[in-house]
Parts: sequence; structure tokens; C-alpha cells
Amino acid sequence: ESGALDQARRMLNRGLAPVDVAHLLESTPPREREVLWELVDPELQGEVLQYLNDDLQTLFLNRMNAQQLVSATEGLDVDDLADLLQRLPNTVTLEVLASMEAQERQRLETVLAYPEDTAGGLMNTDAVTIRPDITLDVVLRYLRRHERLPDTTDSLLVVTRGDKLIGSLPIERLLVSDTTMLVRELMDTEGVSIPAMTPDAEVAKLFEKFDLVSAPVVGTDGHLLGRITIDDVVDVIRENAEHQVMSMAGLDEEEDTFAPAWRTSRRRAVWLGINLLTAFLAAAVIGLFEGTIQRITALAVLMPIVASMGGIAGSQTLTVLIRGIALGHVGGGNVKWLLNRELVVGLLNGLLWALVIAAIAVLWFGDPALGVIIAAAIVINLLIAALVGTLLPVVLKKLNIDPALSGSVILTTVTDVVGFMAFLGLATLFYL
Amino acid sequence: ESGALDQARRMLNRGLAPVDVAHLLESTPPREREVLWELVDPELQGEVLQYLNDDLQTLFLNRMNAQQLVSATEGLDVDDLADLLQRLPNTVTLEVLASMEAQERQRLETVLAYPEDTAGGLMNTDAVTIRPDITLDVVLRYLRRHERLPDTTDSLLVVTRGDKLIGSLPIERLLVSDTTMLVRELMDTEGVSIPAMTPDAEVAKLFEKFDLVSAPVVGTDGHLLGRITIDDVVDVIRENAEHQVMSMAGLDEEEDTFAPAWRTSRRRAVWLGINLLTAFLAAAVIGLFEGTIQRITALAVLMPIVASMGGIAGSQTLTVLIRGIALGHVGGGNVKWLLNRELVVGLLNGLLWALVIAAIAVLWFGDPALGVIIAAAIVINLLIAALVGTLLPVVLKKLNIDPALSGSVILTTVTDVVGFMAFLGLATLFYL
Repeated sequence: ESGALDQARRMLNRGLAPVDVAHLLESTPPREREVLWELVDPELQGEVLQYLNDDLQTLFLNRMNAQQLVSATEGLDVDDLADLLQRLPNTVTLEVLASMEAQERQRLETVLAYPEDTAGGLMNTDAVTIRPDITLDVVLRYLRRHERLPDTTDSLLVVTRGDKLIGSLPIERLLVSDTTMLVRELMDTEGVSIPAMTPDAEVAKLFEKFDLVSAPVVGTDGHLLGRITIDDVVDVIRENAEHQVMSMAGLDEEEDTFAPAWRTSRRRAVWLGINLLTAFLAAAVIGLFEGTIQRITALAVLMPIVASMGGIAGSQTLTVLIRGIALGHVGGGNVKWLLNRELVVGLLNGLLWALVIAAIAVLWFGDPALGVIIAAAIVINLLIAALVGTLLPVVLKKLNIDPALSGSVILTTVTDVVGFMAFLGLATLFYL
Repeated sequence: ESGALDQARRMLNRGLAPVDVAHLLESTPPREREVLWELVDPELQGEVLQYLNDDLQTLFLNRMNAQQLVSATEGLDVDDLADLLQRLPNTVTLEVLASMEAQERQRLETVLAYPEDTAGGLMNTDAVTIRPDITLDVVLRYLRRHERLPDTTDSLLVVTRGDKLIGSLPIERLLVSDTTMLVRELMDTEGVSIPAMTPDAEVAKLFEKFDLVSAPVVGTDGHLLGRITIDDVVDVIRENAEHQVMSMAGLDEEEDTFAPAWRTSRRRAVWLGINLLTAFLAAAVIGLFEGTIQRITALAVLMPIVASMGGIAGSQTLTVLIRGIALGHVGGGNVKWLLNRELVVGLLNGLLWALVIAAIAVLWFGDPALGVIIAAAIVINLLIAALVGTLLPVVLKKLNIDPALSGSVILTTVTDVVGFMAFLGLATLFYL
């Protein structure tokens, strides 16, 4: 028994990389997870923590005191340490800061001064800086005095005596150029430099657009604050992509896959409650037509088809629009073109499937009028779905509401209400 | 009029970077897009093409003859060129290959030998290689003979005389180490090297796990074939993430946002047709209970609520599972734990909302039996939703079916059928 534990301890602390230990913890149900976490050496816990999702970071961090935190997080990069500290109560953060060396503390405070989801929150403070008026020879000798360079150093940053960023020297250029030349003659002055308050999604776009490996971060006065590296940007890209998938189901992308049942139930209950409101709205619409349904029960049989086709068509439009907005394709003049296209698509697919559905309805219930009524309702609902699917995300975006989170709830409310209203309403007009 | 055209031409060819021109084309409706494309200088078209989505690449490529293609794609990286050639008819590809220089052709053929979505299809063939038994001094002099290094060169690859990969030398180490040392003494031999047939999603995981900037690609015999750089991996990550969002609505992530109405209609019609089948299945279930509905029309009013709550709860479970599988958290032993958790969550939320819904139903229709019946149906449907939402993606994955594409259709079919069946079936048992 204790032999197995010893073996597990050895594997966790020596056999596996910290990122793998984090992955193992994220893939383990709570009870076993507790056991595994206790087996991780205290001085490795910081390394492991930085790779865990927010849920687990919070869980484990809240059990450590300031002293344990300081020793666990020794040697972490400043940006990763800042991420961790942001999950702690303020008093603990202050204690941790107080116990650090002055220089390290100052660096950390620079990063902590910016929100987590901005360039300032993403950056590291470990750039190699050089002056413009030295030769490459001097640069090369200066570098050789280092034991190692910061991770992912693809450029040296050129700064004035006052630490104002004036350019960057790609390492590649340092290696292929004449070593008697001056940094000033070779440096890029047109390179990307990112203001510290830039949102992380914008940072990701810049990295993708210019195929960057790292980029300097500057304050409002042009002073160099730090450096963002591609590995942190990749995390942002993945998280933002996951955010869309998860929010469409009312979930959070930082959620622990193995969260306990009780916590999971509470989180999901809210989303179910919101959807219940819209379901009752749809029910109320059906309630208006109880009399008609009592006479023609075929209506009750067919009505979900009208609502469901509208919901599917609308969610296709909505998804295309949300993605188009995220990619920056949609905006301004071309929304009108898209609305037009979506209405034509809604009409064409509406007509196609209205014919199919009408034919089946007539064969099923032997009532031609029912065919005409359901066909008309399908066309109406698919046109409304196109209209709402196109305009809703554009409007939500303008109102700064995340369309991925609330878009599909609002859309299906509309397609349910319109679907039932059109179908049962037309039937009432005709039959009563 | 022609002054405006001239201005547009100038902007496209000199004012904007190729990636921006591609973005502009992707953000423009078809007719204006045609005009813009004609204004792009022929020798810039290749650069622009590589940044376009598959839809637009195919559109424009199909109009060019081999001669135009060769001149447009001159100077492209081999991996980008290979991507473009893969969209062309075979005869044109052969013509393009025939008109290239021997060395360039050979490189291209190396990349074309691998599927687009493998490490081999992603790689570039432009690595800087060195031999193990030379000093850093010699390496530095060798590098200085280059005019520039390939983009994103963070390591030199160490190969034997027979081009077998035996290690890599990070440029950073070259800059900080004693220049009299041998490459062999300093090189990494434990670094990541990626077999050419590795799927691109696995490549992305390796880059994320080890924070790589570039990695060598090797053949089955350990020979160096090329090098993958982080910028191409970022594209893979974004595309795979988009794939999930888009396929949940039956869409393709490479689709042109401004595709014409006719083509869009055809593509979307298929998805609507599939969903129609499931809607008719649900309708058939309701049809079984027409007699009951005729007596108690309140059932028709309330039945969409049962189906909808099941669908929402199930899609939450499904989303968590699909994500867990994609992240590698879910598999093997822990599925049972998750199923248990989801069933408990389904039961808790089922009971909570069943009470709420039952209370409203009783107040609305003044019939306590109706409250009991709908409460029972809600609990049953949420439990089934938890069961199917958990097991369906695991099973689909095992069958190699993309759960993002077919998961939600199957799930809502189940929750619709079970929801209607439970609610109307219980009502029939009680009232008739």
C-alpha cells in the first residue's frame, strides 16, 4: 500500500513534467485528486499550479498560507505568478509581495497593475534590452555574459537611457550581419509594440497577423514595460475559442471537468432557469390557441416541427454571423448584404422544406388545408429566423453583450414564439 | 471614376499588407470582391491567396492557368504553396511542378507527399542544419554567410552526414556559450521531433505542452524532412476550435462568410433535412397520443417545456464531455465517475425545476394531477439527458464519428422523443 504511494510520489515529482502533472490532476475526480495533490512536492506545486484551470487553482491556492505560497512559487515567471496571485484574497497577496525581494516585487507589481485580460496582464518583465549606439560585437559580448536568455527571446529590445522603446533587433539579424555595424543601423523601428491596456483578443490578432513570436509592451508614455511571448498568446487563442463553445451552453470555459455534483448543479441551474422562462413564453403562445388544438389535434402533432426548423435555420445564421464578427469580416456596410443573402437563403430553404413538410402532413392527416397552413408557417418562421439570426448578434455586439452567451436563447425564443404563433394563428383563422 | 479605381489599386498593392488584402477580400460581398481581386497585381496574388479561406482560394485558383500560377506563387514558402496546390486539379499541379526549378520542385514534392492535416503537410523545408563535430565559432561563421535565416529560426538542427536528425542547438545557447565548444557538447538530444504522419491536432498539443516555437519533422527512418513553425500551429489551433463551433450548426469552418445565396442554401439544406427527420420522429411520438391531447389540451401547451428542458440540460452535459475529450481529460476509468456526477446533477436540477414547473402548471390549469405528471416527466427527461449526454460523445468518439457534428442532433432527438413519450404517456395512463 505505502509502496504504491511511494511509487506515485516518485512519478509525480520526478517522472512527469509539471504540465503533465497538471493534466493528470485535471483528469482526476475530486477524491483521488486530493491524494495526488498531497503527493506533489511543495516546491513543485507552484509549477504545477500555473498549468491548472482557474477552478483548481482557486481550490488549491486557498489552502496554502503566504509562507507556503512563496516557497511554492519561487522561480515562476512573473506573468504566471501574477495570474496565480489574482486568485487570492488581497491580504494574502500583500503578504506574498511583502516576503519577496525588492526587485522581484517591483516586477510583479508592474504586471499586477493591469487586468489579467490585457497586454499588461499577459506580459513578462524579462526582456533583454540594449542601447542603440553600440556595435553588434559589443551586443554579442554582452549576451555571452548571460548564463541564459529569457525563454522565447527572438529579438533584443532597443531602449534609450530613459527606458523608452525605440526599436528591436531580431536575433537572426544579429547572427547574419557585419559585427562592426551599430544596433541603430540594423534595428527595426517599425515593429509592433503593444500598449499595455490592449485587450488580449487584440494582442492575439496582432500575433496572428504578423506571425510574431514575441512583442514588447509599452506604457502610455512609450516606456518599455515588458514582453509578451507566443506561448501565452496561444493560451489566449484557445481560451477565447473555448469560450464560444462553452457559453453557447451557458457554461464557463475555466470550469473543472470533474467539479463535484453539488457545485455543478448550482452553476447549471441558472441556465436551465433562463431557458425555462423562454419555454413558458412559448407555452403561453400555444395556450392562446387551446380551442383550435382541441378541434384539430393534428396541430399539436405538427407544431414542434415548425418551431424546430426555425430554430435550426436561425442558429445556422447566428453561428455564421458570430464567427464573421469575431473574425472582423462583418461590420458596417456589408451587414445589409448579409441580411439580404440570409433572407434569400431562408426563403429558398423555407420553400423547399415547406413543400416536403406539407406533402407529408397532407398524406398523414388527409387534409390539404393543413398542408397549406404548415407550409406558410415554415416559410414565415425561416424568414424571421434569418432576420433575427443576422441582426441579433450585430445588435448584441453593439450593446457589448456577448452574442455567444445570450444569442441562442433569444433566437430560439423568437423562433418558438413565431413558429407557434404563425402555425396556430393561421390554423385558427382558417378553421374557426 | 477611373481615379477611384487607381486609388484602390494603389492601396491594394502598396498600402496594405497581403494579409490585410486577404482580410478585405474575405469581408467583401462577391460582386465587389471580383473587382478588388482584379486590381491586385498578378505577382502579389499568390501572397494574398495563402491567407484566404479554402472557399476563396478555390474560387480564384480555378481561374488561373499554370503560367499565371507559377508567377503568382513565386517566393511563397513551400508549405503555403503546397496548401494552394492541393486545391487544384491534378493536371494543373503537374504543370506547375514541371515549370519549377529542380530543387524547389523536389522540396514541394516532399511536402505534397503528406496529407494537409499531418505534420508533413504543415512543414516547411527550410531548416538550417549543422554537423555535430564543429565548434560554435564555425557555426557562427557559417551563419554569417547567410543573407538571412528562415523565418522563426529558434534552433539549428544537428544532422549526420546522411541527414539523420540527432539533436538541436537553440540559438539562445549559441549566443551565451563558450564559442570553442563543440555542437555535440551543447546540443539537445531529448528535444521534440515530430514524425511526418502525426495528425495536426497532435502537433498542436506538442507545441502547447512544450511551449515550442519550431520543431523538426522526421521520416520513419529518422531523417530530417523539414520544420514546423508556431505560426502554422496557431492556424491549426484556431481552425480546430472553429470547427467545433461551426459543426454544431452543421457548417464548415472554411466557408466563405459572403458565399452567394444559392450555394449557401444548398449547403444548409442538408442539415435542415437531417433535423427534419428527427422533428418528424418527435411528431410521430406525439401522434401516438392524439386522443389524450384532444381530451386534455393543457398537455399540448406544456409538452414543449418538457422537451426543451431535456434538450438544454443534455446539451450542457454533451458540451462538457466533448470538451473534456478534446482536452484529453476524459477517457477510461473516469467516464463512470462523470456519468455518476451527471446523473446526480440531472436528478438535483430535475427535482428543482420539476417543482417549479409543477407549481406553475397547477396554478395555470388548476389540476394537481397535471403537476405530478409533468414533474415526473421532467425528472425522467433530465436523467435520460444526463445519460445520453455523457455516453453519446464517448461512443461516437470510439466509432470515429465527430461528436461536435452529430452529437447535438442525436441528443435532441432523444430528449424530444423521451420528453414527449414520458409526459404524454404518463398522462394517458392517468387520464384514460
